[in-house]
Amino acid sequence: MTKIPVTVLGATGVVGQRIVRRIVGHPSFRLAGVAASARSVGKRYADTIHWAEEELPAEVRDLAVLPCTPEGAWAPIVLSALDAETAREVEPAFARAGCLVITNASAHRLDEDVPLIIPEINPGHLGLLDVQRERRGWEGGIVANPNCATAVLALAIAPLVPFGIRRIAVTTLQAASGAGHPGVASLDLLGNVIPWIEGEEDKLREEPRKIFGQMGSSGLISASFLVSPQVTRVPVPHGHMACITVELEKALEAREALEAYDGWAPAVTLVAGQARPQPRLDVERGGGMTVTVGQLREDGVFGLRLVARGHTLEGGAAGAAVANAELAARLPPDRLAGYFTGRLERWPSG
Amino acid sequence: MTKIPVTVLGATGVVGQRIVRRIVGHPSFRLAGVAASARSVGKRYADTIHWAEEELPAEVRDLAVLPCTPEGAWAPIVLSALDAETAREVEPAFARAGCLVITNASAHRLDEDVPLIIPEINPGHLGLLDVQRERRGWEGGIVANPNCATAVLALAIAPLVPFGIRRIAVTTLQAASGAGHPGVASLDLLGNVIPWIEGEEDKLREEPRKIFGQMGSSGLISASFLVSPQVTRVPVPHGHMACITVELEKALEAREALEAYDGWAPAVTLVAGQARPQPRLDVERGGGMTVTVGQLREDGVFGLRLVARGHTLEGGAAGAAVANAELAARLPPDRLAGYFTGRLERWPSG
Amino acid sequence: MTKIPVTVLGATGVVGQRIVRRIVGHPSFRLAGVAASARSVGKRYADTIHWAEEELPAEVRDLAVLPCTPEGAWAPIVLSALDAETAREVEPAFARAGCLVITNASAHRLDEDVPLIIPEINPGHLGLLDVQRERRGWEGGIVANPNCATAVLALAIAPLVPFGIRRIAVTTLQAASGAGHPGVASLDLLGNVIPWIEGEEDKLREEPRKIFGQMGSSGLISASFLVSPQVTRVPVPHGHMACITVELEKALEAREALEAYDGWAPAVTLVAGQARPQPRLDVERGGGMTVTVGQLREDGVFGLRLVARGHTLEGGAAGAAVANAELAARLPPDRLAGYFTGRLERWPSG
Amino acid sequence: MTKIPVTVLGATGVVGQRIVRRIVGHPSFRLAGVAASARSVGKRYADTIHWAEEELPAEVRDLAVLPCTPEGAWAPIVLSALDAETAREVEPAFARAGCLVITNASAHRLDEDVPLIIPEINPGHLGLLDVQRERRGWEGGIVANPNCATAVLALAIAPLVPFGIRRIAVTTLQAASGAGHPGVASLDLLGNVIPWIEGEEDKLREEPRKIFGQMGSSGLISASFLVSPQVTRVPVPHGHMACITVELEKALEAREALEAYDGWAPAVTLVAGQARPQPRLDVERGGGMTVTVGQLREDGVFGLRLVARGHTLEGGAAGAAVANAELAARLPPDRLAGYFTGRLERWPSG
Repeated sequence: MTKIPVTVLGATGVVGQRIVRRIVGHPSFRLAGVAASARSVGKRYADTIHWAEEELPAEVRDLAVLPCTPEGAWAPIVLSALDAETAREVEPAFARAGCLVITNASAHRLDEDVPLIIPEINPGHLGLLDVQRERRGWEGGIVANPNCATAVLALAIAPLVPFGIRRIAVTTLQAASGAGHPGVASLDLLGNVIPWIEGEEDKLREEPRKIFGQMGSSGLISASFLVSPQVTRVPVPHGHMACITVELEKALEAREALEAYDGWAPAVTLVAGQARPQPRLDVERGGGMTVTVGQLREDGVFGLRLVARGHTLEGGAAGAAVANAELAARLPPDRLAGYFTGRLERWPSG
Repeated sequence: MTKIPVTVLGATGVVGQRIVRRIVGHPSFRLAGVAASARSVGKRYADTIHWAEEELPAEVRDLAVLPCTPEGAWAPIVLSALDAETAREVEPAFARAGCLVITNASAHRLDEDVPLIIPEINPGHLGLLDVQRERRGWEGGIVANPNCATAVLALAIAPLVPFGIRRIAVTTLQAASGAGHPGVASLDLLGNVIPWIEGEEDKLREEPRKIFGQMGSSGLISASFLVSPQVTRVPVPHGHMACITVELEKALEAREALEAYDGWAPAVTLVAGQARPQPRLDVERGGGMTVTVGQLREDGVFGLRLVARGHTLEGGAAGAAVANAELAARLPPDRLAGYFTGRLERWPSG
Repeated sequence: MTKIPVTVLGATGVVGQRIVRRIVGHPSFRLAGVAASARSVGKRYADTIHWAEEELPAEVRDLAVLPCTPEGAWAPIVLSALDAETAREVEPAFARAGCLVITNASAHRLDEDVPLIIPEINPGHLGLLDVQRERRGWEGGIVANPNCATAVLALAIAPLVPFGIRRIAVTTLQAASGAGHPGVASLDLLGNVIPWIEGEEDKLREEPRKIFGQMGSSGLISASFLVSPQVTRVPVPHGHMACITVELEKALEAREALEAYDGWAPAVTLVAGQARPQPRLDVERGGGMTVTVGQLREDGVFGLRLVARGHTLEGGAAGAAVANAELAARLPPDRLAGYFTGRLERWPSG
Repeated sequence: MTKIPVTVLGATGVVGQRIVRRIVGHPSFRLAGVAASARSVGKRYADTIHWAEEELPAEVRDLAVLPCTPEGAWAPIVLSALDAETAREVEPAFARAGCLVITNASAHRLDEDVPLIIPEINPGHLGLLDVQRERRGWEGGIVANPNCATAVLALAIAPLVPFGIRRIAVTTLQAASGAGHPGVASLDLLGNVIPWIEGEEDKLREEPRKIFGQMGSSGLISASFLVSPQVTRVPVPHGHMACITVELEKALEAREALEAYDGWAPAVTLVAGQARPQPRLDVERGGGMTVTVGQLREDGVFGLRLVARGHTLEGGAAGAAVANAELAARLPPDRLAGYFTGRLERWPSG
C-alpha cells in the first residue's frame, strides 16, 4: 500500500521535531517535507535545529526546509506545530488549498466548526469538518488536538463523563517542556513553583467542555460541566500532573467505572503504588501516549479525587496530533501506529 | 522584667533547632535547657546536631543535652518538637508535672480538650486548657499548633470564614523540609512530584475544622465546612504552597473581604505580581511567619480560587510554636516577638 | 545451548534490581535465584522491594528470596550487589564454596589478588584469579568491577594510556542514584552541590591505577600515574560526569588517538555538540553502557582536558557487573549481550 | 559629609538592580539616577523591571529612567552593569566626559591600561588609571571587576600566591543566575549539567593572571601562572563553586598560610564541616561578599586541592563593583560599607 504524504509545519521546534520522528517509519504516512519560518527556508533541516533532546533521524537531516505556504509545502495531510499567532494565518491557507490540517496550535481550537479531538474520546466530532467546509468554502479543513494539560484532564475524566460530571476543580503541576525551548528560565523554576501560565487556565475551562460536547443537528453543543482550574509550573522536565476534584451525579456508579478503568488502556491506565503517578517514573509509558491515574478515592466532600499524569510533548502534543491524523485519514485499524486502538465503538459520546 | 525559663524537647531536629534560635534573644523567654533522645543526653548540644542549615548560636553550643523527662527538663513552658510517637508518651508527663507544653507534634492535636491554635485566628480556644486540666487532673497542659500545610490553609482562608465557607478543595505543593532531615530521598524528588505524604491529608481534613471551631459550654464544636485535600511533594527546599478552591455562602462579601486582606498583615499578605506567590522568592517574608496569597479570583464555578504559600518550618512549625508560647504565657503586647500583633480583638471567632 | 545459572545477592537494592533485569532474558545466563538480607528471606521478591524505578519483570516477582549463603543461593556464577560491609563476609564464603562471585561491592576491589575489571580495558587481569585461588585455597573466586565514578574516568582515559599519562586531576559531578535509595536527602541536594562523598576520593585515587596496571610474574603492578580527585554530588537523578585534566608524555599523539576515539564505541563515544555531554540527554546511550566524551582540547597548561559522562547504575554498576560475568564465563562472542564487543584484541594492555 | 552622586547604567537587569540596592543607603554614595537602554528611557524605573527577586526600594521606584549617555546620566562615579557589547561603546563615552566608570562588564577588562580589581587583592592596580588617562586622553576612566567565576577563584587562591603558584586546574560549577534572566532555559538545567558557558573559560584563563600581575614602570605584567579551566552550569539558583587544583613551588608554606586563612575574613573564610562549602547554605554569607573555602588538602599529586564558593551576583558582580567604587573613590575606612576592611596593607601585591 502506498503511504500518505505528510508535511510538517513548524518542524524545527520541540513539538515539530517529535512529530517528524513519529512520521518517519509510520506505517501509513511518509514525510513529504518539513516547513518552518522564513529564516529557515532553504536551509538543511538539521542546521535549523537550535535545540534538540534527541538526534534527528538520519533520513531527515538533509531535507531542505520548505516555506509554510500551500505552494511550498502542500500535502494531503499537513501536521502543524506552529505557534498560535502564525497558525492563525497559515493554517486556513492550507485548508483552503485542500489540505487536511491537523494542528497542535491553539489558534482555531475553539472555533465552533473546528473539531477538537482526542480519538479515544470524541472521534465522531470529525463530522464538524462537513460544517466547516461548507461554511468556509474550503476543500480541506482543520482538525485540532487540545492543549497538553487539557489532554491529561480529559482522558482522566473520560470514564466519569457518563455519570454526570457537574463541576471540576483541577490544579495542574506542569513541566518545563510545556513551554517549549527556551521557555521558562531556570532562575524562575529551580527549587520553585510558579502559579501562573499565560492563557492556560482559559484553555482548561473551555477545551474539555468542547471535547465532551455532543454533535447536534446545528453543530456541537458543549458539555454542561464547569471547570475551575489553577495552573502551576513545577521544576520537572517532562510530565504534566493534574490533581482533580470531580463533583458528579452518580458517584457510586462512577466509582465502579473507575475500578474498571483499565479497560481504557493504553490511553488511560491506573498505576499501582501508594505514591503514584509520578512524572519522572511514568512519563514514558506507552511511548508517552498513556495517561496514568492514581490516588483515586471518594472524598466525601465533592465526589471523587484523582491524580492524573501525561506526557507534555507526546500525548499532550506531537503524539496527539499524529493520532488525529490517523483518525482523520480514516485509516483502517491495521494501519494505525497504535495510539488509539479500535475501542472507539465503546465510547458513549463517540 | 525577668524572662520566663523555657526548655525545648527534641532540640536536635530541624524544627527543634529553629525553636532554639527563636528563644535565644527572645524578649520574654530565656532558654533553660535543650532536651533530646537518650542517645544525645549528656552530650554537648552542638555535637548532637547531625544536620543544620545554620550554625547554632554561640551561647547554646556548649549546653549539655537534657533528657526528655520532667525531672530532667522541667520549665514552666516547654516547647516540644518531638516526633508524634515520642510526644504521645512524653508530653503528658510534662503536663502532669505542671509544665505548659507548647507542641508542634501531631500526637495530641485532635484531642478534644487540647487547644489547636493559630494566635491570629483562635486565641480564645486557649480556654480549653481549663477543660483539659479538670478532665486530666493536670497542673500544666498541652497546647498544639497545626501541621505545616494546615497553617498555610488556615491563615489563607481565615478572612473568608465569616462569609460561610461550605467546602474546600485544596491541592498542596509541599517542600522537602516538611519531612525533616533526611526526609525525602533526592532520588525521589529531583525533577519529580510525589502525590502522597503519609497521614497528611487526614490532618488537612480535620485540623482546619477544629481551628475554626466555636467554644461552647461543653467544649469545642468543629466548624461545619468540609475539606477535600490532595497533597503533593515538589522539588522545593522550603515553602509550602496550597492551591485552594472555596465554596461559600456569600461570595460577593467574601471577595470584598479579600480585597481588604492586607489588614491581616503580617500574618497574611496579598502579594503583588501576576505569577505570585512563589516559594523561592516569598519564603522568608516576615521572618518566615507571613503567609502570602495570590491568584485571587471568583471562579464562576465553586466560588473563590486562591493560592497561598507559607514557610514550612517557621510559620508552619517553629515560629508557630513560639507564637503559641507567647499567647499561652499571656504576654503583654510589648513582650511579644511580633509574630502576632494585637489584632486578636478584630477576629470574629477569637 | 543451556544457559548458565546465576544468583543475585543483594537483589532488593537499586543495583540488584537492575542486575536482575539484565539477567532476565540474557542470551547465556538464567536467573536461578535472588538473595537478600535476613529480613527478606522467604518473602516474595516483589514484596521486598521498597523502592523501584521500574516494575520488576513478571517472571521474577513471585520468586522466594533466598538467604545470602552458599547453602541457600549457590550457583556457578553469583552476581553481588551487596553493601561493602556485608560483602566482606559473604562473598568469600561463596568463593570458598566454588562460586565465581562477580561483585559490584567495594569490599575486595583493592585486594591484590582480586581482578578489578572493565572488559574493554583489562580483560587479561582475569588471570589474577589463578593467583587468588592458589593463595586463598578457593575453588571459586571474586572478580570486581570498579566504583561508578571510576568507571567513567577509566573508560574516558583508556585511549590515552598508551601515550604516557603522568598525572590526572579530576572533578566529578555525581548523580543522586550513586548513593542508592534513600541515599542523599533532597533537602541537601535541591538547588545545591555537596563537595563530599564518603570514601569516594580514595576509590578514584586507587582503582584506576589498578585497572591500568600490568600483569607481571609476581602479580599485578599498578599503573604509575597519579590521580588527584575532587568529588561533588549534584542535583541530577542519574549520570555521573567527570571533568578531567590529563598530564601526558606525548600530548600530540594522544590528541590524534582522541580524534580516532570513535573506534571505542559503543563503550566510549565522542558526543557531538558544543555543550555536550549532558547527563539528562546522554544517560541512556547504549543501554546505559556508553561513556560519552566531549569538551576535548589541549589546554596548553597540563596537556588535555575532557569531560566524560556515564550511567551511574548501568555502566557504573549493574551493567558493569554483568559484563564482567560474561567475560569471566569466557562466553564466545555470540553469547554476549553486547556490553563489550570483541575489540579486546585491539587493546594494548589487554 | 556630602555623599558622592552615583548613576547606574544597565539598572534594569539582575546585576543593575542589585547595584541600585547597594547604593541606596550607602554611607558615602547617593543614587543620582538610573539609566538603561532606549526602550526604557523616560519610563518609571519600577515599570521597566521585567524580572526581580526582591522588590525595589521604595525611594527608587518612581525615578525616571535616564539614557545611557554622558549628557543624560553624568555623575562623578558611574556604575555599569551593561552587557559587554553595549559597554564597549558607552563606557568610553562616559570616561571621556570625566566620569569614573566602575564596570561589571567584560568589554574592557583585559585592556592593558584598565585596572581589573578586587580590592582585597590588587588595590594598587588603580595606578593604571594614570596610564589609561594619559594614553586615551580621558579625564575620567574605567575600572573593572572580574567575571563572577574569576572572583571566586582569585579570592580563594589569593593567600597562595606568595608561595609560587605555577599552574591551576579549575572546574567550576556555576549557578543559573550567572547568566542573568532569562539566561539558561529550565529545560536545559533541571536534573542536568551543561559543560559549556560561552566565553567563560577564556575569562578564567586571563583574568586571574591580570589580577595577580605586578605594576611595573611600563604597565602591568601578568602573573606567570597558567590556568586550565573547565566550566559547567549546574541546577543551582545562586552560588558559583570552583574545584581547584594548585601546583605550587612551596607547598608546605602554602599549607601553613591556608591554615591561617581566617585572617582574610570576611572576604575569604574557611568554612567548617566535612561537606562544605555548599551553595545553598553558604551563599548569603557576609551579605554575599564572602568566599567560603573548604576541602583543603595536599593531594600528593599536584600540590593543593580546595573548593571555593562565592555569590554569583554579589561578590561576583554587584557587590564587587560597589567595592571597587569605594576603593576608587579613595574613601576613608569609616566611609566604606564594609566589603573590604582595611587589610589592604597586609596584602603582598597591594
